Amino acid sequence: MAQVVFENEAIHRRKSSLIPSTAPRPDNVRRKTQCFVHSLLEKHDGMLIKDSNTSYDGLVQERKVDNGQIEQSHHSRLLTKKQISDMAFGIRELAKKLAQIRIRLNVHNVFILAKAHDETLISHTRETTEWLLTKNSNYRVYVESTLENNKIFNAEGLLTMNPSFRGRLKFWTNKLCAEKPQTFDIVLALGGDGTVLYASWLFQRVVPPVLAFSLGSLGFLTKFDYDLYPTTLSRAFDEGITVSLRLRFEATIMRSQNNRNTTLDLVEELIGEESEDNHTHKPEGTHNILNEVVVDRGPNPTMSSIELFGDDEHFTTVQADGICVSTPTGSTAYNLAAGGALCHPDNPVILVTAICAHTLSFRPIILPDTIVLRAGVPYDARTSSWASFDGRERVELRPGDYVTISASRFPFPSVLPLDRRSKDWIDSISRTLQWNSRQRQKSFKEWS
Amino acid sequence: MAQVVFENEAIHRRKSSLIPSTAPRPDNVRRKTQCFVHSLLEKHDGMLIKDSNTSYDGLVQERKVDNGQIEQSHHSRLLTKKQISDMAFGIRELAKKLAQIRIRLNVHNVFILAKAHDETLISHTRETTEWLLTKNSNYRVYVESTLENNKIFNAEGLLTMNPSFRGRLKFWTNKLCAEKPQTFDIVLALGGDGTVLYASWLFQRVVPPVLAFSLGSLGFLTKFDYDLYPTTLSRAFDEGITVSLRLRFEATIMRSQNNRNTTLDLVEELIGEESEDNHTHKPEGTHNILNEVVVDRGPNPTMSSIELFGDDEHFTTVQADGICVSTPTGSTAYNLAAGGALCHPDNPVILVTAICAHTLSFRPIILPDTIVLRAGVPYDARTSSWASFDGRERVELRPGDYVTISASRFPFPSVLPLDRRSKDWIDSISRTLQWNSRQRQKSFKEWS
Amino acid sequence: MAQVVFENEAIHRRKSSLIPSTAPRPDNVRRKTQCFVHSLLEKHDGMLIKDSNTSYDGLVQERKVDNGQIEQSHHSRLLTKKQISDMAFGIRELAKKLAQIRIRLNVHNVFILAKAHDETLISHTRETTEWLLTKNSNYRVYVESTLENNKIFNAEGLLTMNPSFRGRLKFWTNKLCAEKPQTFDIVLALGGDGTVLYASWLFQRVVPPVLAFSLGSLGFLTKFDYDLYPTTLSRAFDEGITVSLRLRFEATIMRSQNNRNTTLDLVEELIGEESEDNHTHKPEGTHNILNEVVVDRGPNPTMSSIELFGDDEHFTTVQADGICVSTPTGSTAYNLAAGGALCHPDNPVILVTAICAHTLSFRPIILPDTIVLRAGVPYDARTSSWASFDGRERVELRPGDYVTISASRFPFPSVLPLDRRSKDWIDSISRTLQWNSRQRQKSFKEWS
Amino acid sequence: MAQVVFENEAIHRRKSSLIPSTAPRPDNVRRKTQCFVHSLLEKHDGMLIKDSNTSYDGLVQERKVDNGQIEQSHHSRLLTKKQISDMAFGIRELAKKLAQIRIRLNVHNVFILAKAHDETLISHTRETTEWLLTKNSNYRVYVESTLENNKIFNAEGLLTMNPSFRGRLKFWTNKLCAEKPQTFDIVLALGGDGTVLYASWLFQRVVPPVLAFSLGSLGFLTKFDYDLYPTTLSRAFDEGITVSLRLRFEATIMRSQNNRNTTLDLVEELIGEESEDNHTHKPEGTHNILNEVVVDRGPNPTMSSIELFGDDEHFTTVQADGICVSTPTGSTAYNLAAGGALCHPDNPVILVTAICAHTLSFRPIILPDTIVLRAGVPYDARTSSWASFDGRERVELRPGDYVTISASRFPFPSVLPLDRRSKDWIDSISRTLQWNSRQRQKSFKEWS
Repeated sequence: MAQVVFENEAIHRRKSSLIPSTAPRPDNVRRKTQCFVHSLLEKHDGMLIKDSNTSYDGLVQERKVDNGQIEQSHHSRLLTKKQISDMAFGIRELAKKLAQIRIRLNVHNVFILAKAHDETLISHTRETTEWLLTKNSNYRVYVESTLENNKIFNAEGLLTMNPSFRGRLKFWTNKLCAEKPQTFDIVLALGGDGTVLYASWLFQRVVPPVLAFSLGSLGFLTKFDYDLYPTTLSRAFDEGITVSLRLRFEATIMRSQNNRNTTLDLVEELIGEESEDNHTHKPEGTHNILNEVVVDRGPNPTMSSIELFGDDEHFTTVQADGICVSTPTGSTAYNLAAGGALCHPDNPVILVTAICAHTLSFRPIILPDTIVLRAGVPYDARTSSWASFDGRERVELRPGDYVTISASRFPFPSVLPLDRRSKDWIDSISRTLQWNSRQRQKSFKEWS
Repeated sequence: MAQVVFENEAIHRRKSSLIPSTAPRPDNVRRKTQCFVHSLLEKHDGMLIKDSNTSYDGLVQERKVDNGQIEQSHHSRLLTKKQISDMAFGIRELAKKLAQIRIRLNVHNVFILAKAHDETLISHTRETTEWLLTKNSNYRVYVESTLENNKIFNAEGLLTMNPSFRGRLKFWTNKLCAEKPQTFDIVLALGGDGTVLYASWLFQRVVPPVLAFSLGSLGFLTKFDYDLYPTTLSRAFDEGITVSLRLRFEATIMRSQNNRNTTLDLVEELIGEESEDNHTHKPEGTHNILNEVVVDRGPNPTMSSIELFGDDEHFTTVQADGICVSTPTGSTAYNLAAGGALCHPDNPVILVTAICAHTLSFRPIILPDTIVLRAGVPYDARTSSWASFDGRERVELRPGDYVTISASRFPFPSVLPLDRRSKDWIDSISRTLQWNSRQRQKSFKEWS
Repeated sequence: MAQVVFENEAIHRRKSSLIPSTAPRPDNVRRKTQCFVHSLLEKHDGMLIKDSNTSYDGLVQERKVDNGQIEQSHHSRLLTKKQISDMAFGIRELAKKLAQIRIRLNVHNVFILAKAHDETLISHTRETTEWLLTKNSNYRVYVESTLENNKIFNAEGLLTMNPSFRGRLKFWTNKLCAEKPQTFDIVLALGGDGTVLYASWLFQRVVPPVLAFSLGSLGFLTKFDYDLYPTTLSRAFDEGITVSLRLRFEATIMRSQNNRNTTLDLVEELIGEESEDNHTHKPEGTHNILNEVVVDRGPNPTMSSIELFGDDEHFTTVQADGICVSTPTGSTAYNLAAGGALCHPDNPVILVTAICAHTLSFRPIILPDTIVLRAGVPYDARTSSWASFDGRERVELRPGDYVTISASRFPFPSVLPLDRRSKDWIDSISRTLQWNSRQRQKSFKEWS
Repeated sequence: MAQVVFENEAIHRRKSSLIPSTAPRPDNVRRKTQCFVHSLLEKHDGMLIKDSNTSYDGLVQERKVDNGQIEQSHHSRLLTKKQISDMAFGIRELAKKLAQIRIRLNVHNVFILAKAHDETLISHTRETTEWLLTKNSNYRVYVESTLENNKIFNAEGLLTMNPSFRGRLKFWTNKLCAEKPQTFDIVLALGGDGTVLYASWLFQRVVPPVLAFSLGSLGFLTKFDYDLYPTTLSRAFDEGITVSLRLRFEATIMRSQNNRNTTLDLVEELIGEESEDNHTHKPEGTHNILNEVVVDRGPNPTMSSIELFGDDEHFTTVQADGICVSTPTGSTAYNLAAGGALCHPDNPVILVTAICAHTLSFRPIILPDTIVLRAGVPYDARTSSWASFDGRERVELRPGDYVTISASRFPFPSVLPLDRRSKDWIDSISRTLQWNSRQRQKSFKEWS
């Protein structure tokens, strides 16, 4: 009745920062690694992912710090439409499978993350460190290097408690996180959702599983009550953990090589017919983000004009204070303030919401995570716009510059309670945002 | 570093209308069928879906009209959480693969759908029928049985044009659509988006590929200009088609067996501890819908109180004029009017939006399509609510009744232009809804 | 520098239901009456309103039940633009002055309103009645006539307590409210905001001051805690009361005399050039409402098409589930659910909000209370719409019918606490609607 | 039946920047002036405003540039609640009366405003100037002083055309606008709505009538087509004009005298019991604005926390990107982008809308224009906020600072077409914002 023919994919060429469809595919050979997600693939290929060759391409390419050239080629913005679609789909499949299994950790190196300037948190870090070092003589505990000489943490006092502690109390630096993330079997975050966001910032590529303790009320990402940490950690290390893979975005700033020329047309430059070979833009810094990329007017008093592209097409021009491109995880953060819908973190989608659109007809849109978005400042804009990544690192985008946003190959593994329920997320938005809450009034079965 | 342990799934039992996790799994043996989607699986298993045993379970169980018992067991609301998740995931994977291939149709039987009471459309139906019968002597053309004696259609006149037409002009009835949907190789819809919705209503289970012509401006589902039908059909039949699988929902009304008892608690009954064995509700009619299920106050002057459940958990109580549970396809229909976000049809999500919530803190939520939703009327409600399916068939829900909503195993195959672009959907919302449109004003570089 | 010339007012004629500008003005002679608002004017003209001749025209025309003709001429929809503007302005000025004074009541007749089917409320009615009859032998207390033989109220028992009670316990009927509203010096409402709405329904024209006790938490209109009723009433009767005049709307259904003719054009008929002399519509029932007029699709499954007119101009065609035309008082009721802004009750405005507009570009609008609105069903509409008034009395509007809405000459005098504060309304929306409430989270001065 | 007693007003003291109720009232003696609004009062007291003594107090106190002390006492934030209420009411009454009359101007001095850097506008300014000087030898025309030596304007060429032009072509400076606004009988604005906003900025107190020509499509404030300027001006000068008084706000920045002390409580300081006599804040600059006052996070990456006060009460704490306090005129500007309702410019209201509120339960509120608002930065805020006035002059508010916002005594007289219609405003929002616009689709009377 029907016969299948493969499309010549990519009828529409990808330009500028998007790779041409004829480009060589990123290296598919899976190297021996120690990354968490990767190792799951290695170990359980037989069972989990027997057809994974296609789907996981590009998913867990490891970081090669010394080799910018190769690293570059792994950026998701440089994948073909099919590759990025396969990659995104692979993450979804892995996420689905992870959600149904329990993972036994073989814990050696525990990473503790807490704000090093909050005295309460330093005390808790000290307490947890001591508990871990005491509990199992195989555990090494990494705390932030600024605690090495911190009086409240009192590393010296700790080391004198037990000779075995020496050599097992370690200090991490940002550099270590960037270069050897595989070192850590688990990250314990102490604080609030902001601390988890910080973990995402520290681990820009491979992220160890993050188990987040809340010191106040539970949040969207802090699923464990710190007061119960001994029980929680004992169960996690003995019985195993469940991991939810949270979608992250990879965002790269692309600098126009011709900022001064206000007569250029960004739309033409990015998707027009002629410019195939011109190198009009150069990448400048890539960020993996967990919540959102915002491009806004920054300190300017006037609204921004932002050109929005999807894959190799011009979507629309947004006249607004800015634009918020949010992950599902970020839907309860700035996206909410901008009027976006609340989105379950398991959905493989990109949320695009205007910030104070200067029009009546903008409505938030929800796109598949297989689309590569680009948001740029027109060459004839009177002012710059600013891009920020998870609320940090505000960067100026001058006329002609743009930022690419696409699903990252490095999702964020968030540890969940073993007995989590479907309702978890609804509970979070009800508790934290008071979603759909209302005063219950005594009913008099009024006249009306 | 990590070891995988399978969870004892379904810690939380499913109750009432949801199957207990110990229930026998629906029959997995794939029977020989002629359904469109199924046949794709049959033919191309080797290439397409070598690991499909799990993923496609339940996806293309064929309709067995005479066997209510077995049919019942295939309803997606009766699948376990893992089965429904596998099923939904299977559809996504198939949809992704279909989006990348071109399907060669082996056309014999063409189904034409148009509103039989609109004179213009009857003329067009006549024109298209004649063109098809003339073009290829292997084609059989099915038109609505009400046209058999319609003067404008003039079947007799048509048959006298060419002796070969006799036997190849056929008339369809609703019954034929319901019982032998596999008969048709393709459905041609003439009209607007509403006609496509009607196709979805006619084909409640297996749906042939639907190629929809617009007689006005193109819509969300009508992707082809009728004026170009000869070229469009020639290309489709000769070169093949691309199909987009649109998520449909399966909705079943569950009637309380104890409506009169206002002291019962629906929440307790559906997810409480005690009632495992009670048969509190009986199913009464299942609908596969393409746009949305609405539960609202109907003709009542007062607001509705609706209990919303997700899987086997109570999500929230919605005090509102009603609730709209929309597919991504339906996001541009009633969901839009209720204030929901616009959602790309490829996203595997369920959109839940309150209709005039009587609270400030409701915000639309977006859930994975692996969740089984249930929306019910509390036993102590003063009035009934009404459920409608794609804007039709308004059914009264009395206190204690509810409706289940879950991803359907019968997605809707919509034929797309071969050269479709990522931007298609953005174009649709811009053109049809004037999304983000604004008057361009002459800029004077004003003072402000 | 400037010289003033009076405009020839009303360049644009008013048609159909709107009076021509040449029509004789309603009778301006202020008659001797006993109505509350009117008597204020009588007594305090010297001090309060020395220039009131213009402003208060039409404001306190008394009801003449037996003379439909004259009554008709007082309907605000029949005033010229200047008259309605003067009338509305007069109410604002009176409202402003009332807000700054304390009124000493000379209480003789107290009206008690409570839902007669709620046992708790009947007990409270009995308790309050007894307290009033006991407190002052000049007080007459009116309770609903259905309580005359009610066992819980036990009128006989009450009368036997004290011989003086006989003759001072009276029973009211809806007819008495309609015909002799001036009888009552004050209305005590027991219940919730719905009971106050019912008082507005009972007193369609002149309304005595309404002092509303809440039996649960305080509401928008129930400003006094029932538990403190003895203190509250003693103070009110001894020290005086402050009154807030709440804007009401007068709404009249206009029936087309030619419903069957679907080729007519409602816009042309209402504001077109030719039809001056035709009596195309006839009034059928007028309602004074305190919250809102809603015109919606009622039990229809499809959206409504509603023509909206302001004065003698066509404003827009609303494609929506309906339209909500709300007073400031009603802004926290259905207007809120439909997405309207929250509006302080002192603002002299009309709030127009679409209910589920089927467009992206509708935004609620706020109009001056000097505009006469008309909302009608086009002659070519496929279905009727329904009008409701304060959530009651749903009336079918067939194609060609419309409803007029304008500021009523009969505002609703709501008794306020003597020590009320500017913040009262903000407190109401915060407490009752949880406006701008949020969970206070422990701040860790997070990284982000 | 009722007796009136005057309240001891101002039970709640006004503190800090609000005047105590016992303060002496601003000087009521109306001085001989030449201001436009004032002169209307002078001339037409007999007819227009025979009871104006109360209502217009404070309305047209003239500017005394050399006497900061006295000027200070006229600021509306320093009026008592009753005075500000009287003042606002007086403006409403005057606005209502002005709307019904035609004013004959006795034109001598015409002020032309256009952006002096736009070549087209300079040409138009030249053209209009020449036309005016030629038309009537009594007219003096004032153009911006920067045009004195502008080549396109070519003042010398103009003066050589006609000897009488010399002495009648004048050049204005900002200083002249500030000090002698009464000089000008009318302002002609050429450009767009932004130019009218600039006129409001130039004339901070008394504003001459402003007749605004649009050079593109008509806007909200530009009601005349420049192409028809000869006819328009001839009619205006010969037959008279109609004036609409637009509400402006007076906004004053109040600087904390104790910024460094983060333990202070702004709420306590502004409305608490103890601090009556402390001079905690000093005024620093007052702005009369036509659109809106915005207090926002400016260049900060994190949200603002803003304390909002109404009169002498604390309303709420807004956690948001900022807050927009808009006039009705400004409702179609930034208020719209922030999600506020569209408000007819005649309504005497203040629109308060949060900008990206970080909560689900914020809804815009609409307050009477008799309320004095104050929006401040808490002492313990981590960052400053920024205040801007009609989109200009962004000023930093450090912790402890606040801004007061109240109805200005100096409304903005906008010249309207003589034949204006009720529908004008609806036309503006429809044409300029495409309010409630939708694609008309060919209806097929679809199945659904």
